[in-house]
Amino acid sequence: MSAIPPDHPGVGELLAVLAYGEISAFYRLADDARMARTLEGKVALAAMASAEMRHFEVLESALVARGFDVYEAMDPFVRPLDDYHASTHPATWLEALVKAHVGDGLAADFYREIAHRLPAEVAEIVEEVLATTGHSEFVVHEVRAAVSASTRDKDRLMLWGRRLLGEAITQAQLVMSRRDALTDLVLGAAGDLNGLAELVGGMQAKHGERMATLGLV
Amino acid sequence: MSAIPPDHPGVGELLAVLAYGEISAFYRLADDARMARTLEGKVALAAMASAEMRHFEVLESALVARGFDVYEAMDPFVRPLDDYHASTHPATWLEALVKAHVGDGLAADFYREIAHRLPAEVAEIVEEVLATTGHSEFVVHEVRAAVSASTRDKDRLMLWGRRLLGEAITQAQLVMSRRDALTDLVLGAAGDLNGLAELVGGMQAKHGERMATLGLV
Repeated sequence: MSAIPPDHPGVGELLAVLAYGEISAFYRLADDARMARTLEGKVALAAMASAEMRHFEVLESALVARGFDVYEAMDPFVRPLDDYHASTHPATWLEALVKAHVGDGLAADFYREIAHRLPAEVAEIVEEVLATTGHSEFVVHEVRAAVSASTRDKDRLMLWGRRLLGEAITQAQLVMSRRDALTDLVLGAAGDLNGLAELVGGMQAKHGERMATLGLV
Repeated sequence: MSAIPPDHPGVGELLAVLAYGEISAFYRLADDARMARTLEGKVALAAMASAEMRHFEVLESALVARGFDVYEAMDPFVRPLDDYHASTHPATWLEALVKAHVGDGLAADFYREIAHRLPAEVAEIVEEVLATTGHSEFVVHEVRAAVSASTRDKDRLMLWGRRLLGEAITQAQLVMSRRDALTDLVLGAAGDLNGLAELVGGMQAKHGERMATLGLV
């Protein structure tokens, strides 16, 4: 049983930030696909982008069912998420692949950590939209092949991964500082400030594992 | 019963041109969304783009099940479809919406006309990937509102619609002139050259109806 009531005002904000996250991820992936060197690469990114939209549709229904206007609800999150993408604009195809994999992973870790302490009906939606999309093998394969062939690529991508982590934390803090209800929900799920610090520590550890999977260790 | 055998060599080519059509439509919609004036417009185009990818996945499975390499099979169609999109690059948001609606409609009319004379198992796949995606209300609403408010927009978009039709026919002829097996399949489905001419006539009539739905009459 969650200590957080299903009608907590932060629930709508959580669904809304997830929803706009899907939209912005869709357009980031579609944009980054311009750098693809093969049609297979373009297709892989398009498939990942389209999975984001399937998730958006789930969140849209959940927001509508709760009486929200989807566009009004997403509005406060447009700026911070667009800023995150603008500040982590990949310069190469490999950076785009690492961002797709690592960025999505970071977001998923965060939401999954708090999901299991949310009311069951909300937790279910969050779990559903974080379900892996099954296209990450392509990314892992491409990145591993590239970094095992070039120390220079490896060094650059390791720095890039660190930057993605830093920017994600910066923007998450910015969102929290501005949305009281969401902050209250997240703190409630984490327990307290110590719980939140542990959660961020756990995310950093998982980020390291994910980088290792890509051969970036 | 279809007179065309399920292992006709044109079947793979038909599935492949449809498959690349979905990929190119995906990226065209994602690109055109840059011109959206509202987040709602961006979401509508992203949802349409993601429906194209769902269809791609159906075609990909069908090609793989028939022993084709998907990327090799699509290769001959990359150039003509990219050329179609390059020659009909929308200059405005309204042109993008009309293209999304009318271009998809033209392709769907053509494939649907031949589908019901193809072997049942192929016809089913074609029907599935042509299923309407349910996002066209947004386009119809936006375009009707704009053209009822501006004769200038209306005149421009009517010319635009005619150009889309012309370019689609040009590129379709180019594809046919280069792919013997596909041409044989299409001619077999249409009956003969007269049947094919009737089919094109039918498409022009439906194009007119579609333009009328958009208020472009």
